[in-house]
Amino acid sequence: MKYYVGIDFGGTNMKIGIINEKGLIVIKNSFVTDPNKSGDDIIKHIAECTQKVMDDSKLPQEDIMGIGIGTPGLLNPETGVLKVAVNIPNLNGIHVTKGMSDILGKPTFLDNDVNIMSLGEFYYGAGKGLKHIVALTLGTGVGGGIILNGELYRGASFTAGELGHISISRDGKSCPCGNSGCLERYIGRDGIVERFMVSKNKGFETNIDNYLDDGEITPKAIAMAANAGDTLSKKVLEEIGEILGSVLAGLVNTLNPEAIIIGGGVSNAGELILGPARTTMNKLAYSIPAEVVKIVKAELGNDAGLVGSASLAVANLK
Amino acid sequence: MKYYVGIDFGGTNMKIGIINEKGLIVIKNSFVTDPNKSGDDIIKHIAECTQKVMDDSKLPQEDIMGIGIGTPGLLNPETGVLKVAVNIPNLNGIHVTKGMSDILGKPTFLDNDVNIMSLGEFYYGAGKGLKHIVALTLGTGVGGGIILNGELYRGASFTAGELGHISISRDGKSCPCGNSGCLERYIGRDGIVERFMVSKNKGFETNIDNYLDDGEITPKAIAMAANAGDTLSKKVLEEIGEILGSVLAGLVNTLNPEAIIIGGGVSNAGELILGPARTTMNKLAYSIPAEVVKIVKAELGNDAGLVGSASLAVANLK
Repeated sequence: MKYYVGIDFGGTNMKIGIINEKGLIVIKNSFVTDPNKSGDDIIKHIAECTQKVMDDSKLPQEDIMGIGIGTPGLLNPETGVLKVAVNIPNLNGIHVTKGMSDILGKPTFLDNDVNIMSLGEFYYGAGKGLKHIVALTLGTGVGGGIILNGELYRGASFTAGELGHISISRDGKSCPCGNSGCLERYIGRDGIVERFMVSKNKGFETNIDNYLDDGEITPKAIAMAANAGDTLSKKVLEEIGEILGSVLAGLVNTLNPEAIIIGGGVSNAGELILGPARTTMNKLAYSIPAEVVKIVKAELGNDAGLVGSASLAVANLK
Repeated sequence: MKYYVGIDFGGTNMKIGIINEKGLIVIKNSFVTDPNKSGDDIIKHIAECTQKVMDDSKLPQEDIMGIGIGTPGLLNPETGVLKVAVNIPNLNGIHVTKGMSDILGKPTFLDNDVNIMSLGEFYYGAGKGLKHIVALTLGTGVGGGIILNGELYRGASFTAGELGHISISRDGKSCPCGNSGCLERYIGRDGIVERFMVSKNKGFETNIDNYLDDGEITPKAIAMAANAGDTLSKKVLEEIGEILGSVLAGLVNTLNPEAIIIGGGVSNAGELILGPARTTMNKLAYSIPAEVVKIVKAELGNDAGLVGSASLAVANLK
């Protein structure tokens, strides 16, 4: 059996785990990073934590084939250089993969968190056995990863799959990216809550107060209320699904994928969003590609980052 | 020097030509097909015409590497079977590539006219030297071909690039495909003329009558009038460009291509459409991919079908 290390590097802390070639996690642990260390020292620390997990696993070191690192920062997956790290400016410009493989002697690969999630689902989740998939993460932001002919497709400047910034309305909400009507502004976490609040403030009845999430109205609270029958919550999630579906229709026509896999925190609303998304996609997409595509929830859940990061090593070393 | 045969099979007639490996046409001819013949006899006739062109070229037969056939019908590029031929029902279900290679002894490949055009532009036109391009044909219909990592991307059921049926409005014009708001209904030939007529009938001034195309108002006539300063014609083409640009923005975000290449009859309006398309794309697309992409007119013109078909052989035999 071959094994692969995955590092889900989230900014100030990281999860490190090892999967076997079937995608099962054999060990995992999490560590805190000190952002005040120098870039080189942070890399050294990541390498030490990784070595610890490898040691703890008791696996023969030669069966551990390589290391994949996923992070939400801006990076170059071809060179392995982190350009803009999230929350850790000392890592900006650091050649992460070289630093790691110099210390640990294992081939190391770096990519962004959304591509990572796509790879995880492709190898070990809802995309297993398929060739062409699009993966979307719905959370604070909306991101996408594209796998075509079994390979991650990154585009000319590594931004392919920037689905959160597809504009759904030329006169729409302005987005911090500088444009108008970006999908993320509607179906990202804030967009969903905003849509809910607009209706609530207009006086629509809702029993959301029984389902608050740590005292707050969040997509999770809205989904819980909707599942309990709250009409306003159901209506809001249905509208979110319709907006998502209209963008998916364009993707279906453009890429004719076998599956569109929806992950991220917001996707826990499940069929409350996916049902209307599917209906709208079917209504708006060309029938031939619409008939072949399945729109499904991501399967890897909380371990998506870990399994996905390890999958990056699988993809590069298979 | 190696040579490749291209067959631009348009329904009742076909152009057959030979290009060299630099994409230059060394000979071409056109022939009429009799749709009343049996499928096998039509294939025999295409093969005879092809042999005639090869003989007339005086090239050493062994330097002619293979044959590419492009046609607007519905087909399977992997098997080489034409499923629904345009205007020639007797060809439906015929294994075109096998029939041709059995007779001529050359490897033969089949694909649809839009993919063909993309390949031609990729190897010998506006996409030369690039890796990731999207090609659009604007004419009666609107079609698209996608080349990623230097390879034609066809999708799960060979319909990738169905850009003409991307819906730009859920409540938009109904389309014969069964959906609403398809791009083709707005920026296809009829959509352009319809948009012009609506304004003209409202009483907007225009001197289009000085530029009629065989007595008719066509996109060509509108472009000529616009080039001569006609305000209404300019406004209509600007709106067409803006609609096109809004869809291109989504493509740019999704695929992060190096170039989007616009061909087909309507593209002869050139900057009258491409200018506003570029401006709108820049306004709506995410800045990183928007900065790298160029939106340009196709270069192969009237020979696009011929050079493109031959390019299909190049792509498969390179």
